[in-house]
Amino acid sequence: MPVRGLVQLFLDGEVTFEALAVRIGQREPRLHCWSELRPEDPVPDGPFQGLPYGAKDIIDAAGYRTGFGSPLYATNTAVKDAAIVTALRTRGARLMGKTQTTAFAYYDPAPTRNPHNPAHTPGGSSSGSAAAVAAGMVPLALGSQTQGSVVRPASFCGVVGLKPTHGLLPLDGVMPFAPTLDTLGLFTQTALDMRLVWQMLGHAVEAELPPAYGWIEFDTEEAMSDAVRDTVVRLGNYGISIRRVPPPESFLSLAFAVPIVNKFEGARTNERRYRDHGDAIGQKLAQLVRDGLAIPETQYREALAIIQQARHDMAEVFQTFPVILSAAAPGRAPAGLGSTGDPRCNAPWTAIGGPALTIPMNVPKDTLPLGLQMSAAAGQEAALLTAAAHCQALLTAQADLDLG
Amino acid sequence: MPVRGLVQLFLDGEVTFEALAVRIGQREPRLHCWSELRPEDPVPDGPFQGLPYGAKDIIDAAGYRTGFGSPLYATNTAVKDAAIVTALRTRGARLMGKTQTTAFAYYDPAPTRNPHNPAHTPGGSSSGSAAAVAAGMVPLALGSQTQGSVVRPASFCGVVGLKPTHGLLPLDGVMPFAPTLDTLGLFTQTALDMRLVWQMLGHAVEAELPPAYGWIEFDTEEAMSDAVRDTVVRLGNYGISIRRVPPPESFLSLAFAVPIVNKFEGARTNERRYRDHGDAIGQKLAQLVRDGLAIPETQYREALAIIQQARHDMAEVFQTFPVILSAAAPGRAPAGLGSTGDPRCNAPWTAIGGPALTIPMNVPKDTLPLGLQMSAAAGQEAALLTAAAHCQALLTAQADLDLG
Repeated sequence: MPVRGLVQLFLDGEVTFEALAVRIGQREPRLHCWSELRPEDPVPDGPFQGLPYGAKDIIDAAGYRTGFGSPLYATNTAVKDAAIVTALRTRGARLMGKTQTTAFAYYDPAPTRNPHNPAHTPGGSSSGSAAAVAAGMVPLALGSQTQGSVVRPASFCGVVGLKPTHGLLPLDGVMPFAPTLDTLGLFTQTALDMRLVWQMLGHAVEAELPPAYGWIEFDTEEAMSDAVRDTVVRLGNYGISIRRVPPPESFLSLAFAVPIVNKFEGARTNERRYRDHGDAIGQKLAQLVRDGLAIPETQYREALAIIQQARHDMAEVFQTFPVILSAAAPGRAPAGLGSTGDPRCNAPWTAIGGPALTIPMNVPKDTLPLGLQMSAAAGQEAALLTAAAHCQALLTAQADLDLG
Repeated sequence: MPVRGLVQLFLDGEVTFEALAVRIGQREPRLHCWSELRPEDPVPDGPFQGLPYGAKDIIDAAGYRTGFGSPLYATNTAVKDAAIVTALRTRGARLMGKTQTTAFAYYDPAPTRNPHNPAHTPGGSSSGSAAAVAAGMVPLALGSQTQGSVVRPASFCGVVGLKPTHGLLPLDGVMPFAPTLDTLGLFTQTALDMRLVWQMLGHAVEAELPPAYGWIEFDTEEAMSDAVRDTVVRLGNYGISIRRVPPPESFLSLAFAVPIVNKFEGARTNERRYRDHGDAIGQKLAQLVRDGLAIPETQYREALAIIQQARHDMAEVFQTFPVILSAAAPGRAPAGLGSTGDPRCNAPWTAIGGPALTIPMNVPKDTLPLGLQMSAAAGQEAALLTAAAHCQALLTAQADLDLG
């Protein structure tokens, strides 16, 4: 685990743009993180000091292609920047290129491979963004999460992924999928890096550490359950209070409600594409359109009501536990590139709308990464980022002890 | 082994365009054969009857992207058609899309996977073309060969790959690499399909079968040596005379001469790209540019002289043996996507300039394909294609016997 992430190293002048470009040249042919690269793009002024970043290929950048991860859109060039691209440029960040996404940000996989083991998926849908940051190609990348498309690949790739509060980052110029859930997200190597980026984006980051953390246990694979329990112990050793939280009934019901909303809305945003191109939009997405169009509107309304109830119930839980820990994925990155993994640990947090992020846990040498998910109430990014940076520092210190 | 290939089936009306489009939708997310897809493109009139084909993504098609397999060229849209695309359109073929290529048709791999086993490379540089035909997505695809970029991936993917006589198919609108060697090539499922395509392209295909075949044995892996020997026996059972040919000294020297020409010329055609982008053009290509620029011109001239001598010497051998058999690759498709394999069985044939093709040999069930290379003197496509169709028919009949 890096103590100082690439954002910090770049801002300190210890890693140059040229060094990152060389690293991309070395690693890209094996990993396929990028759908477009423009290392020659101009360097803007601002607090980011020309920091290079990647943007998931469903986000428009003027003059760049927006390919949606589909060969059907190979020549779809964007006319104007997405609002987030403008925001980053005016603050001095430099667009290195567009990163590979699963087709239309659904489950038909991207060609990207996991930098920790190229025989495994990096997760998705923000596959290229997670892998590019994990491979040290760029300090920062943009993704998007409708169910678990930021936090899950970040967990699989051993980086920090932040899905901020729903609606907080602007979605103008970003391909919609299921608007009730769609949220822009960010990838960095460390939580401190993420906090720094969040601050440079103009948000407050000062906050107190929570007096106690909640912990919701999902049904996960053994490696993940063990790692979360081990992490709870490690953090406990530093005097951090962590209490198991019985999730409200409405929160548990999200396991059924979120997929309904995702399919109902996703089918409608992709219906035209499906009518034009059929299964060529991707077999899994085509199936979603067929399934989603068959969902009765009453069922969709019920699902939305469950989400409303869960938001209300979880707001109360966050009163006692401002930050809640959970597994960031059901387990390690699956073998092969056929499946990008299961979003079931992330989708409930996406639905309740508050920020969620993942930090890598301490895992045995030569095993794939596992992420600890940390979630907070809507608008509480400052508390979440501060807590995450604190926890990651403690876990990193322990990793040094493990090795020593 | 298919008795009737997809070209034949399509022209007979037994496979429709729509069925192929559905198949692409089903298989593309796992195989990544395509860099751009335009199934909605208009259907031209002509003898090809709207037969869909793929064009390697170093071949221009007006309005399509020419991406060269590199994210650096994601928005490089072609203004006009390559001459071969025009030739196919005016004869009624329909461009289904652009197929994945290794970066700039060198060794930095494409994301494409071998349809026979996605954990293996399809070979390259014409990776997507070979795999798309092998997966039954299109009946025909265009590739290019500078050393072994058509015949090798065809061997790995179990399809027929033809590298015609150097200069016979037009290279206008095709990215150059090493002009002394660069040749456009074609992929189909069967040799009969290839003969049909060659005829519809306006070339003569009527020819007599050769009285005897030559056989040059390369140093290959055991599976390949065994398969070639087994094929020689199988063809011998049908009364076909096959004689071992001791290759002329100059032909053997091509093992040294061709890589020099490839590097010297390849470095110069890619030098500007390398100066602009450095290692981001691909680590292996960047290394070629550095190596190739360091080759003294005298050494390059000597290599060209060896090629001239080999052309002369082999012309004599072809007088006795109009068609020469050899291994199409050192072995089966290597595991992983990191390497696209070794062109050493193909490069000598490319250098002497005559046509070379591969047909799949009979291999044990559930093993990866192995190709038999067949080569002829410059301009002797009719003899080569007739011989190849004949041999493939005999091998297919034997395969039926093996199973029966």
